[in-house]
Amino acid sequence: MLVDFKRPSSHIKYLSSLTSDDWINLALSNPIEILIDHAHCERKAAGVAIQLMFRYPAEPSLAEVLSPIAREELEHFEKIIYFLKDLGHSLKAIKPPPYGAELAKNIRKEEPNRMLDSFLIAGLIEARSHERLSLLALNSENKSFKFMYESLLESEARHFGIYWKLANTKFPKEETYKRLDELSKVESEILSKTFFLPRVHS
Amino acid sequence: MLVDFKRPSSHIKYLSSLTSDDWINLALSNPIEILIDHAHCERKAAGVAIQLMFRYPAEPSLAEVLSPIAREELEHFEKIIYFLKDLGHSLKAIKPPPYGAELAKNIRKEEPNRMLDSFLIAGLIEARSHERLSLLALNSENKSFKFMYESLLESEARHFGIYWKLANTKFPKEETYKRLDELSKVESEILSKTFFLPRVHS
Repeated sequence: MLVDFKRPSSHIKYLSSLTSDDWINLALSNPIEILIDHAHCERKAAGVAIQLMFRYPAEPSLAEVLSPIAREELEHFEKIIYFLKDLGHSLKAIKPPPYGAELAKNIRKEEPNRMLDSFLIAGLIEARSHERLSLLALNSENKSFKFMYESLLESEARHFGIYWKLANTKFPKEETYKRLDELSKVESEILSKTFFLPRVHS
Repeated sequence: MLVDFKRPSSHIKYLSSLTSDDWINLALSNPIEILIDHAHCERKAAGVAIQLMFRYPAEPSLAEVLSPIAREELEHFEKIIYFLKDLGHSLKAIKPPPYGAELAKNIRKEEPNRMLDSFLIAGLIEARSHERLSLLALNSENKSFKFMYESLLESEARHFGIYWKLANTKFPKEETYKRLDELSKVESEILSKTFFLPRVHS
């Protein structure tokens, strides 16, 4: 299939690469699998926010922002489950792409670097989800899927902003920019290695 | 201090023992520490619900009930943080009582027993929180704390009901009653060993 896909007029500028037409094509052809995968992404993102709350239980002003993120991820998780249910589908375990595990390998072990990397990687994942859900919302011809993608994507950008702000509140600006640049290149590099199943982060 | 504490007219009947006057006394004298501990309990309870969603990602109708539980625990977590903040206190790491870890030792390793025990223990913790928050709500002389306890306790009883229903949906009734009876005795036994700090489950 050769089409000119619509591209969003703006995207989160910190991503080092834009998503390929091949991915858009694969994802648009497999909307159910993409949504099941995205439900798992929301569940995992809630898990990450809560994990950070556990790791730094007394860090000032951290729980106040992470807890609402976790709640919103869970709301979206439920929203997708019910959407799928209406279509006769249900949540199932599916093979995840290597994306999350590969990214996590880049979290440095010692504090406070571990905290900085955790914030930035959580943010980059949200940024990439936002870019890809925007592409799906723009190019999907099925209205109910289109609305679904639209209803999910705004919070992904907002969550990126929250993680980025957290990083910049707790670390010097120069350090966060430098490290985000490094991790953003790693993120694009991971996505450049093709994973042949339709996933949000394949 | 010798007082006749008020006792709720009803409680979740599955608890094998009622809380002692000594605990009520200690908790009423240390409301800030109790609330900090309870905030951590809510955070941990959200963690448990999400952990179960991760462990059984494709179990039918599990995520639909666990995800809202996790969201509600996080809402309460945030509520307590802001309540404490208004009083000039903030969340801090405090030594937890051995309760949670001791209870977890009773979760059998092999499935499906592991699932049954996880539901029942999560439920028993909610039941005990409900009993103790009810005692604090009834006996606290400070109105703002009283309202705070009241606003938290209803959902604890409801969550017990959800875990209990989950257990009874997925396992034979005879088995769930027998195992709940065993675990409930273990729970009371753990609490009978005094832990001298004011905690919700000390």
